[in-house]
Amino acid sequence: MTKAPEIDGERLLARLDAFAGIGATAGGGVNRQTLTRGDREARALLTALAKARGFSVFQDDMANLFIRMEGRDSGLPPLLIGSHLDSQPSGGRFDGALGTLTAFEVLESLADAGFQPERSVEVVAWTNEEGCRYAPGCMGSRAFVDGAIPAEWADLLAGDDGARFDDERLATIEALAPEVGHRPLGFPVSAYLELHIEQGPSLESEQIPIGIVTGVQGTRWLEVRFEGQTAHAGTTALQYRRDPLKALTTALSGLYATVMPDDADARFTVGRLAVTPGSVNAIPATASCTVDLRHPEVEILDQLETAIRDMFEDAAKAAATELSIRKTLEMSPVRFSEAAVEALHTAASTIGFETKAMISGAFHDALFLSQHAPSVMIFVPCRDGLSHNEAEFVEPEDCIAGAQMFMAAVTELLTKPGIA
Amino acid sequence: MTKAPEIDGERLLARLDAFAGIGATAGGGVNRQTLTRGDREARALLTALAKARGFSVFQDDMANLFIRMEGRDSGLPPLLIGSHLDSQPSGGRFDGALGTLTAFEVLESLADAGFQPERSVEVVAWTNEEGCRYAPGCMGSRAFVDGAIPAEWADLLAGDDGARFDDERLATIEALAPEVGHRPLGFPVSAYLELHIEQGPSLESEQIPIGIVTGVQGTRWLEVRFEGQTAHAGTTALQYRRDPLKALTTALSGLYATVMPDDADARFTVGRLAVTPGSVNAIPATASCTVDLRHPEVEILDQLETAIRDMFEDAAKAAATELSIRKTLEMSPVRFSEAAVEALHTAASTIGFETKAMISGAFHDALFLSQHAPSVMIFVPCRDGLSHNEAEFVEPEDCIAGAQMFMAAVTELLTKPGIA
Repeated sequence: MTKAPEIDGERLLARLDAFAGIGATAGGGVNRQTLTRGDREARALLTALAKARGFSVFQDDMANLFIRMEGRDSGLPPLLIGSHLDSQPSGGRFDGALGTLTAFEVLESLADAGFQPERSVEVVAWTNEEGCRYAPGCMGSRAFVDGAIPAEWADLLAGDDGARFDDERLATIEALAPEVGHRPLGFPVSAYLELHIEQGPSLESEQIPIGIVTGVQGTRWLEVRFEGQTAHAGTTALQYRRDPLKALTTALSGLYATVMPDDADARFTVGRLAVTPGSVNAIPATASCTVDLRHPEVEILDQLETAIRDMFEDAAKAAATELSIRKTLEMSPVRFSEAAVEALHTAASTIGFETKAMISGAFHDALFLSQHAPSVMIFVPCRDGLSHNEAEFVEPEDCIAGAQMFMAAVTELLTKPGIA
Repeated sequence: MTKAPEIDGERLLARLDAFAGIGATAGGGVNRQTLTRGDREARALLTALAKARGFSVFQDDMANLFIRMEGRDSGLPPLLIGSHLDSQPSGGRFDGALGTLTAFEVLESLADAGFQPERSVEVVAWTNEEGCRYAPGCMGSRAFVDGAIPAEWADLLAGDDGARFDDERLATIEALAPEVGHRPLGFPVSAYLELHIEQGPSLESEQIPIGIVTGVQGTRWLEVRFEGQTAHAGTTALQYRRDPLKALTTALSGLYATVMPDDADARFTVGRLAVTPGSVNAIPATASCTVDLRHPEVEILDQLETAIRDMFEDAAKAAATELSIRKTLEMSPVRFSEAAVEALHTAASTIGFETKAMISGAFHDALFLSQHAPSVMIFVPCRDGLSHNEAEFVEPEDCIAGAQMFMAAVTELLTKPGIA
């Protein structure tokens, strides 16, 4: 080691600009959905940058892309760092790209400093984190951790253009295959570190540059449907009404007034609501909605789900309507490795950064990687908490601070007992 | 007068069957929307039946159809009795047709009995009561009462087939013109009597065969829209949420719990509700709904509207959302002529029928005619309160009882001081 590795902020910002030009939208965002031409161009650019620095590049069968800086002991499982390069259809420039390019910046800075760690360090760009062309999201990290690609993914069709998943996966791999090596899914890694924009407002509003993510909350999705009886708005007195919308709004009002106010860690969201037949002068026949419920503790998720079901049941009975509830998603909460979280706190204090320990409200590839190796995440603030939006923005100084924190965290994770 | 006029129940039921065959649907209802081929066939059949009995037939410029039994003093304004022949697209056999054919049955029965009243009696079939191809409803009676057709109706286009209102109106008049005379809009009448199915459940559930309608409640329609801010369901803590659906459901829950429970004459209905962007894991950006508010008293309508607006305002403020409310309809309540209502009570006691005095929850042509002459309505029960539905049904004995009541009412209205 000739000098302490230090990230190059200008280089990182220039790389962000270069990648934002791939799939750029008129509104200043990016449309670089997974496995499309834009995604392939981004993979090709990252591969070219890696090759230019003498790093070796690999792909696995999910088209997850790996860039390897060889350690002194090449037989040790590498430290894996990265994020994703795909975007939402009207996505921002930072979601995924910032984490991938920060990891690559750290790799370059280590090389600039002539620093060769004992174990290898690998940057990863996971395939299809967003899940908007092919559901579910985080396909790349899921399959990596499982060591296999679920057979039912092969025939998934992209919503807008009907392209078959397996055809696009293989074509994407094929496009880079001459230049890059092959990797098995699920190879051993020492730990996984990912930087991401918060996609929420708390770091910005509290003016804290770095979030140390201690876990990902659990998520449950419910589809709730009340069935009553449609009737004439003008002629039907109260005692003859079986109004499903009355039942639904009464229950929701009660839930809005209790779930989140009573527990600051709970998240209760109704994003869809529909009534039929939808006539201004007809009592609805049906009213249905979705529920997105999240909490870091599985026991509390259980309690909340029970309380929510009870509230809907009571409202259904009171309005003489029929209720059905279907659970469409259940993801357990994850606590990241204590050793990895501790390494990040040590790293932050080493470089004198203020941090906030926080739970991630959104899914990330790290959620799946945590089943495979000690994993942890760093959050940086984004303006107004806005993401999945062309207006998504991260201040340049926050990008740079994030990369400095990332470098300190990599250094720590490479030597931390229990991880290294 | 050779014998007391008495309606012929079998003839009425046969006529109902004959008209139900025009525009009949597979589900047992009718699709005889205004000015379509089915509507014209129904007009032609009624005209043919009238001609066969020696009644004279007229149309006005709105294609309202009149069948006249000449009184002894042909200079006196006639007593007008009737309803409409058009239907909803998936309508029932009784809505409108029962009232028109009951009025025609009474005309025939008067003729059968050799009864010639002093003043003429005319059956009317109003054009476009339903308002489903061309809005608003009750076009025929509105224009009749105003004495003119609003210029802006000419270019109205039917939703499904794009036919222009004025073209269809003129073609419909033209089709019958060779056989029938012309009438001015808004000619004087002594009174107006209409029989209709209740379109609500109260007569059936209270087992009362006849409703004497004392008025039509007032109606106001509001469009309510809350605008908040969409954000990620998982990452956005309560203090950062500006959730328009929370505001809307909180207000609605309060309104469902107060408006109708506190006032048995009030009707509060939300028939449409929509949220955008409508994603299961996104807090909505907007939430909007309609309100259909009805009450027989205009002062109470004013109070209720104020209370409703206040409830929405409070909820908007509590959720830090923007509120806009637009009034899209305002129809004042109508009290039918006391003399005409009294005549119906007298008629009912003469023939020993149990009746219930009631307010109409729905609009009817009588609402508009009441601005032109003493008007009143008779309701008969319909099964489960169901209307605007192919399953709409009235028991044969209730059809016959309604016609008997109608005959007694006509007799009374022909001699009632203050009307006759």
